Amino acid sequence: MLLTGDRAFRASLSKMEPHRSSLVVLHNAMIVTMDSESRVYGNGAIVIERDRIKAIGHSVDLLRQFGDVAGEVIDLRGQILLPGFVNTHVHTSQQLGRGIADDVDLVTWLHDRIWPYEASMTEEDSYISTLLCGIELIHSGVTCFAEAGGQHVPGMARAVESLGLRACLAQSVMDSGEGLPASWAVRTAQDCMQSQKELYEKHHDTADGRIRIWLGIRQIMNCTDELLLATRDTARELKTGIHMHVAEIPYENQLVTETRNVDHGTVTYLEKVDFLQDNLLTAHTVWVNSTEVGFLSQAGVKVSHCPAAAMKMLGFAPITEMLDAGICVSLGTDGAPSNNRMSVVDEMYLASLINKGREVFKNGVTDPTALPAETVLRMATINGAKSVLWDDEIGSLEVGKKADMLVINASTWHMVPLHDCISGLVYCMRTENIDSVMCNGQWIMKDKRILSVNEEEVISLAKRASSELLRRAGIKIPNRMNLL
Amino acid sequence: MLLTGDRAFRASLSKMEPHRSSLVVLHNAMIVTMDSESRVYGNGAIVIERDRIKAIGHSVDLLRQFGDVAGEVIDLRGQILLPGFVNTHVHTSQQLGRGIADDVDLVTWLHDRIWPYEASMTEEDSYISTLLCGIELIHSGVTCFAEAGGQHVPGMARAVESLGLRACLAQSVMDSGEGLPASWAVRTAQDCMQSQKELYEKHHDTADGRIRIWLGIRQIMNCTDELLLATRDTARELKTGIHMHVAEIPYENQLVTETRNVDHGTVTYLEKVDFLQDNLLTAHTVWVNSTEVGFLSQAGVKVSHCPAAAMKMLGFAPITEMLDAGICVSLGTDGAPSNNRMSVVDEMYLASLINKGREVFKNGVTDPTALPAETVLRMATINGAKSVLWDDEIGSLEVGKKADMLVINASTWHMVPLHDCISGLVYCMRTENIDSVMCNGQWIMKDKRILSVNEEEVISLAKRASSELLRRAGIKIPNRMNLL
Repeated sequence: MLLTGDRAFRASLSKMEPHRSSLVVLHNAMIVTMDSESRVYGNGAIVIERDRIKAIGHSVDLLRQFGDVAGEVIDLRGQILLPGFVNTHVHTSQQLGRGIADDVDLVTWLHDRIWPYEASMTEEDSYISTLLCGIELIHSGVTCFAEAGGQHVPGMARAVESLGLRACLAQSVMDSGEGLPASWAVRTAQDCMQSQKELYEKHHDTADGRIRIWLGIRQIMNCTDELLLATRDTARELKTGIHMHVAEIPYENQLVTETRNVDHGTVTYLEKVDFLQDNLLTAHTVWVNSTEVGFLSQAGVKVSHCPAAAMKMLGFAPITEMLDAGICVSLGTDGAPSNNRMSVVDEMYLASLINKGREVFKNGVTDPTALPAETVLRMATINGAKSVLWDDEIGSLEVGKKADMLVINASTWHMVPLHDCISGLVYCMRTENIDSVMCNGQWIMKDKRILSVNEEEVISLAKRASSELLRRAGIKIPNRMNLL
Repeated sequence: MLLTGDRAFRASLSKMEPHRSSLVVLHNAMIVTMDSESRVYGNGAIVIERDRIKAIGHSVDLLRQFGDVAGEVIDLRGQILLPGFVNTHVHTSQQLGRGIADDVDLVTWLHDRIWPYEASMTEEDSYISTLLCGIELIHSGVTCFAEAGGQHVPGMARAVESLGLRACLAQSVMDSGEGLPASWAVRTAQDCMQSQKELYEKHHDTADGRIRIWLGIRQIMNCTDELLLATRDTARELKTGIHMHVAEIPYENQLVTETRNVDHGTVTYLEKVDFLQDNLLTAHTVWVNSTEVGFLSQAGVKVSHCPAAAMKMLGFAPITEMLDAGICVSLGTDGAPSNNRMSVVDEMYLASLINKGREVFKNGVTDPTALPAETVLRMATINGAKSVLWDDEIGSLEVGKKADMLVINASTWHMVPLHDCISGLVYCMRTENIDSVMCNGQWIMKDKRILSVNEEEVISLAKRASSELLRRAGIKIPNRMNLL
């Protein structure tokens, strides 16, 4: 790929030189736009002006129109251009905890590993964890993510600003529940709302508009009705979104049925208290019946499907039924201790596989035609953008939208031969095929090298910080083999 | 990683210089041996003499003993050493057909895409397809594979010889069945046996002993009893293995029940005709009941579990039940049109996820403790070696075994932090972490660069050959989007 020098290139985008225009033309690419008409340009070009897409079309036309006036003309030599992926459910705080809870039961996972880990984090840990997670996200083609609700939002925000990513950040919010770490158990609904309002004031619409602050609800078993309703009303008032884990395990539904006087589970209860609305993003949402799918659809709720975490820990959500019901379903990786790959590239592959396989339990045989590649690609791009309430600016390559995009090299052993480009992107592509990543008109990765932060330095910081964090949290991981 | 120049290094292993010993010492590595005592050396060393492991132990001890007499001493700087992975079910012939049959039903898949594709292959296509597949296998850490039964074994053998891999090759063998391409429909059981005996004569135990010839049965729906029994007897006579697709879809069992007078399916029938024996490797083996699991166990049959193909096309095999019954279960990728990643690294991840998730259909909830990482790692290494009847020489790092091994760099964003080394290898590792690969004492990949063949050249050959092959076969792939 022909690109001019790193920093110089980024600088050329952010400040115009007197004799050169700020226009950048990328041409000679197969452009998969993911627009509403599913346009693919076989030999396409895209013109970027600062942070936005100014034009998109055939290379020959755009070169004629913009070739002479552009400050930069880049030949992508037949590589593929895609909108940046949107990861709609990721715990940036948990990146330093990768490997702390593999192959253990759910109670051990939560009470003995994840909660002590998260409760022991400092703001600096959150910063480093988000940096490390962000590096993996960028390599995996993500330009925008929705934090699932974690620790120390200011630490996250500082990292996101440096990484050059776009994000909807949310705090981990709980005001009740069994087995909470001592420092969390004292929080009231009022504390939770106050703290989130302050975060919103301070961080919403910062980092050139790349950071938005959302409200969080960790899960129904850790929130009072007071918190639930205050969150609903505050989100309306602030015009922002709510991110919540919903219907993750059968026990959750059972507890809700027993304690909150409804006949099924969390979704039924949320419907009853008028919590379901189109600014709600529910993660996992595995244990829902067809009535509840109807509730979600009717309210315009968005669902983040996390295939790896589903298989590993939660179960198989009725994704094809949700899509058939018109629900906007997108893809999430969940956190590192639940998956452990923070890669939407892998989640696309898994989403297609798991939902083809799940049909066997409905119909006696798998359905290899279920969740075809084009649907999965929509889930990772435009549906992701809709899920984070940002589809007016991201999720597809269209004139006027933000310049968030990926350059994909498909001419490698991973993807050759490419008889079916769209299925190749979903089934064959791996992170290694993602060559360059642009977010908000800035290259944040080029030729597989992260430009925005120093990768080696972050890895080194992360190793040290994570060891110290585990020590503070008193978490010891048993040996699986006979270490000599 | 500190290694001396490529070709020179390989030469130093294959011919001893007068003043230097042929011993190579790799030290300062975490060595996961996969031996019967699950030994892991925290700071280990391994001594290689030509194609075999001469010693293994703590770095300090082996450096003292061999440091001065070794021809080469290599500091692995804390990287991880693993035995090479064994891919026990892969269609090398199908690599050029990647993407030709995604998201289509099984009949279209087989009759309109795969059979016309395979029937149109030349020996040169087979050679190129195997080279391309081999490149992917090497990058994915595979040093030995079992060909599932494909076209033009001489083409495969030529490629395997060049690639430096170890393989059990088998021909695609059918003498009956519906919908076969014309050139295949005329083959008799005698033709099939004759052809395989000739291949055995010519290619078995060639390429420094790296190539073995196995017998194939494509599937029960495409073989007569005559072929089945001749295969069984010939395998005994030649002391080689049999590779067969077994119990892939419910329809297969139904047909066997209806036409071969048994009460369940393929495994029951194979038991009845005394076909089940310890040199049989059955692929997929999804639709088996508990009686049949018992038959497989009792006979010492090996099973190749292919998680991606299972989810995409076939269904969920009772893997935990098979392991509990003492069956040797290993991992396979299947062919490119069934998966589409030919990566045992990904199959390890999937094997753990799918079998944790499958528990939901048995017990109502997933079991995150099912198929733990150490079990999966065994499936990909020592169980793989047992499955291809080669565990006297490969599958673990032990004195006297062949030097087939991987150098893994875990200090990257994919695997950091590495709180749990074994789970990190299964859940986090990606092909990018596999730095170097040695097979039969020779480096075939070093610093992610394939040494044995020219990767770029193969990719270029493969693009051309696959387009021409599809044209000859009359296969057209419909567009999924709106191509402009």
